Amino acid sequence: MGRWEPDARGRVMQAALELFSERGFEQTTVAEIAGRAGLTERTFFRHFADKREVLFAGTDALRDLLVSTLASAPQAAAPIDAVVAALETATAPLQERRDYARRRQAVIVANAELRERELIKLASWSAALAETLRRRGVREPAASLTAEAGIAVFRIAFGRWVNDAGEPSLPQLIRASLGELRTVTAGDGAPGADRS
Amino acid sequence: MGRWEPDARGRVMQAALELFSERGFEQTTVAEIAGRAGLTERTFFRHFADKREVLFAGTDALRDLLVSTLASAPQAAAPIDAVVAALETATAPLQERRDYARRRQAVIVANAELRERELIKLASWSAALAETLRRRGVREPAASLTAEAGIAVFRIAFGRWVNDAGEPSLPQLIRASLGELRTVTAGDGAPGADRS
Repeated sequence: MGRWEPDARGRVMQAALELFSERGFEQTTVAEIAGRAGLTERTFFRHFADKREVLFAGTDALRDLLVSTLASAPQAAAPIDAVVAALETATAPLQERRDYARRRQAVIVANAELRERELIKLASWSAALAETLRRRGVREPAASLTAEAGIAVFRIAFGRWVNDAGEPSLPQLIRASLGELRTVTAGDGAPGADRS
Repeated sequence: MGRWEPDARGRVMQAALELFSERGFEQTTVAEIAGRAGLTERTFFRHFADKREVLFAGTDALRDLLVSTLASAPQAAAPIDAVVAALETATAPLQERRDYARRRQAVIVANAELRERELIKLASWSAALAETLRRRGVREPAASLTAEAGIAVFRIAFGRWVNDAGEPSLPQLIRASLGELRTVTAGDGAPGADRS
């Protein structure tokens, strides 16, 4: 290890997002990110495997938090409610980083490789939630369907949260999206242009 | 174009699946696939961009069929019912190719790159279904949630269809999975080990 670099990780994340936003993800090199962060490439690679992983820092920790929150939900809770409550709790800290999340999302949407990495992240969360539900006694296919439904709710809520200028918090949008998923899956909405 | 090769495409698909099953996806070369199919590499590349795409032949055609089937559903149908009916109709021909589908799935599950390609395929179907729903007058977020719910139903049904030795057809399993999704999203199932 070299000399002490205060918050090297945070500085890399900030510098990378700035450069990705300004120049595009593909056009940005690790050397440029390290330079803007005032660090060496060697220090960059102590914290991240490559420039892509800078955008997915914390993904595994978030998944672990999701799993532990779901694992400790009251056993009496319906599985979908336990999953959605875990998503609300685990992602609540993102609320403080809305500007970062918005800019990160714009970078991801603009690049096919990053969109794929995001799909893989969500699929890994879904698999982890399904496994946790099975450990709680939920059978298949209910466990997998519940996990997929929870991730669909999160994905739509997250998209609204980063794109809308409105007031609702991410947990509020997750709760609202669950309500909407219930309505659409029930399949008894009004037909024609009136459906919403 | 070279001389006429009867069903070159089908022969490549069959040869590729045999080799992927025997040796693994990574260990198989295009030259070996062409050789087993009794064709030249040049002919292989007239039909497929690379060995991975052999396993995803027909994916875009299936998505287009999904979209056109959904687009022509009765306007009075609830969106989720129209989506699931389109999935049943468009994927019914797979029933005749269950053995191929099973062996293909085993190859995909064994390889991270192929699992990612499969995720991308399903995400592209979901996006296409959501777009078609919006054209039918379904608003957001209902359109995206309905499409995601439909793809979750298909994914779980397909997994059961390729893994179970049982009798149910793919359309029957899709229908059953929709019923189960309705139950789990309603969230009023019995708690504890009784839930199924």
